[in-house]
Amino acid sequence: MTHTITRLIPQTPKANASPLAPTDGMLRLPEVAGVRFSAVEAGVRYKGRLDVMLAEVAPGASMAGVFTRSATRSAPVLWCEDALKGPHDADKPFAILVNSGNSNAFTGKNGFDSTKMLASRVATALDCPENHVFLSSTGVIGEPLPADRITAKLDTLASTLSADHATEACAAILTTDTYPKGAVIDMTLDGCPVRLMGIAKGSGMIAPDMATMLVYLFTDAAIDQPLLQDMLSEINAATFNAITVDGDTSTSDTLLLAATGKADMTPITAASDPRAPAFRDALHALMLDLAHQVVRDGEGATKFVEIRVTGADSAASARKIGMCIANSPLVKTALAGSDPNWGRIVMAIGKSGEPADRDRITIRFGDLLVAEHGWVSETYREEDGAAHFARDDISIHVDLGLGTGEDTVWTCDLTHQYITINADYRS
Amino acid sequence: MTHTITRLIPQTPKANASPLAPTDGMLRLPEVAGVRFSAVEAGVRYKGRLDVMLAEVAPGASMAGVFTRSATRSAPVLWCEDALKGPHDADKPFAILVNSGNSNAFTGKNGFDSTKMLASRVATALDCPENHVFLSSTGVIGEPLPADRITAKLDTLASTLSADHATEACAAILTTDTYPKGAVIDMTLDGCPVRLMGIAKGSGMIAPDMATMLVYLFTDAAIDQPLLQDMLSEINAATFNAITVDGDTSTSDTLLLAATGKADMTPITAASDPRAPAFRDALHALMLDLAHQVVRDGEGATKFVEIRVTGADSAASARKIGMCIANSPLVKTALAGSDPNWGRIVMAIGKSGEPADRDRITIRFGDLLVAEHGWVSETYREEDGAAHFARDDISIHVDLGLGTGEDTVWTCDLTHQYITINADYRS
Repeated sequence: MTHTITRLIPQTPKANASPLAPTDGMLRLPEVAGVRFSAVEAGVRYKGRLDVMLAEVAPGASMAGVFTRSATRSAPVLWCEDALKGPHDADKPFAILVNSGNSNAFTGKNGFDSTKMLASRVATALDCPENHVFLSSTGVIGEPLPADRITAKLDTLASTLSADHATEACAAILTTDTYPKGAVIDMTLDGCPVRLMGIAKGSGMIAPDMATMLVYLFTDAAIDQPLLQDMLSEINAATFNAITVDGDTSTSDTLLLAATGKADMTPITAASDPRAPAFRDALHALMLDLAHQVVRDGEGATKFVEIRVTGADSAASARKIGMCIANSPLVKTALAGSDPNWGRIVMAIGKSGEPADRDRITIRFGDLLVAEHGWVSETYREEDGAAHFARDDISIHVDLGLGTGEDTVWTCDLTHQYITINADYRS
Repeated sequence: MTHTITRLIPQTPKANASPLAPTDGMLRLPEVAGVRFSAVEAGVRYKGRLDVMLAEVAPGASMAGVFTRSATRSAPVLWCEDALKGPHDADKPFAILVNSGNSNAFTGKNGFDSTKMLASRVATALDCPENHVFLSSTGVIGEPLPADRITAKLDTLASTLSADHATEACAAILTTDTYPKGAVIDMTLDGCPVRLMGIAKGSGMIAPDMATMLVYLFTDAAIDQPLLQDMLSEINAATFNAITVDGDTSTSDTLLLAATGKADMTPITAASDPRAPAFRDALHALMLDLAHQVVRDGEGATKFVEIRVTGADSAASARKIGMCIANSPLVKTALAGSDPNWGRIVMAIGKSGEPADRDRITIRFGDLLVAEHGWVSETYREEDGAAHFARDDISIHVDLGLGTGEDTVWTCDLTHQYITINADYRS
């Protein structure tokens, strides 16, 4: 099934927005029944912009989540992992509190204390148990979170909650992002209209094998929590875990999905429900779109690159080879220079450590046959490769010619702007 | 034992030489008894510079080698692997022929044919078996090697061989290198003076878990081949395999060591010979120095960085964590910006997938205690960290507090110049 995805576009395009930012879409995110948002300027680190958001999910919702597997994950991530375990009270709302500017990671006991204090204060404000409160922090690592600046705004956050404020919430969680990332799919499940909306942030420190950056998904569908969690985890592997900007993995990656059950439907309780695959398809489409939006806003990105690997020894091998290509600085700088330097792709395949036979590798750019039988194709002309690499959207297909394993990953190029952004991010 | 290492310095410093290039040393490489060199301008790709070298090693020598483990390794590497297996004729010389400008990698049957043809022609010119001829090619991947330009110069190469031409040979193998890398150690083994000399090239596509770039080592010591090979392989793991510039692994990495036996000594035949550890120490010192020289000439490098990891679960775990830090684009750009952003080091430890406990990690810059007990140290002041990161030579020490595994790796920073070099290397 194909879904119509409507993307958020910046109200006033920023001068420094990624050249790959979406240009068609909506100026404001719509409402999702059962969810209210608010956002404030708390001055956690940034001045003169929204930097804290609160989401309230009405009682009776199902919550699912996936988090970074980093060994140095942040205090808020550890808190969320515990909170997700439940038990939860079906008569109480859930809350999601997110700040940008400070990740509260590697902040020791102080970090844990401030996380617990914030959860307690939010629980009081929204009248819910502490383990109904999910917290995320994103920004610089290793500096104490000025939690008092957030608590000072909690009353305002609670009193301004509105179903219409998702757009402001989406803006409040950005760090080095050049545009807000939001998307919506409207579907019909057995005749019942259901909405699925997501907001995401992420631009640098984006890497594979982990959950993702900060992503919050909301739907009014009614779906039991275990099934919701299964869907989220499985789709995550093929979407957010399949993207990379720089191969660096955040300490704070968090993906949450709230299903409010406010749509006029009986709950979906099992994967065998005919509505389950329909919802799963839509969820996959929305998560993939948000994952691609994160790549398109990769720090310094000027190219969006799909890398498809087929004919590998296994799907895991295809993933590893794809990521080896996607994370290679030499491949990424060739992309930045619009140089169809396929020799560097060969190099990246070779260094992956995965099964590969030089003479069975086939490389294509889009429909263009580049190399086969261990050498450049007789029909390949450098100017055709250069024409493909001059595009904003580049497609690389590697066939190993060994087995049936396949996978697709997405990345961006490595440019001067990435160096500029990251050589003085803190200063 | 400490050894005095004398490094080659450029005769006329290039304007674009790495700021980390050696400034003290010798203008020309000395002779090693039993080895002669020559170099020519063959115009393989570059114009107006030496680009092919030939080394002849007198009959009776022992040859040892280590090569890239890339699955897409080049035709010359495959040839060398076979040639090293022998059997060899003690009455015949060995030869090493190296060209820059073209790596003859991923060039299919054509690449194999040109390699075999070149080996055959060198064997005829120097009157030795084909499997006494070692070949290396370095440069662009995937383009046919214009072998005729090399064969046209073989007579000149053979007729101009001289013990005094190592400096020219060292210059001929460079590609994006900004300075030639050569070093010499003179030692005494049981009263007998012995010389050990090495030349190396490498600047980009430098990565761990492989042999190295192109490195050729020569000594007049007499050492049996199996012992020589054991020493070379073992020391390689702690030197060339412990450096990384960009995490990308060449298809052409080659490390060769020729021991001519021309020194006035009885051969060392076993590791139990008291002279063996003395020679091993010198070999380790020279290989480490050349490995560091490669890092100091890393593409765009402005900082030389030692990363020491202790207290890890195992030595392998320490290596993996060290390399995760060394290859992190966010750590490398922080280094470029002289930003002591230790949070990114925490991130890199976390993403390694190796055992780590946030609250037991200790981080030091040089002697400066930065973080411990899961948070920034009470005594750490940002300006002290900034002062350390302002240096050319930076030392990062991570103690995991878990076990006794330790390792050290070396890398450089990631700068605008790396992007500039690699976004239009081919054009």
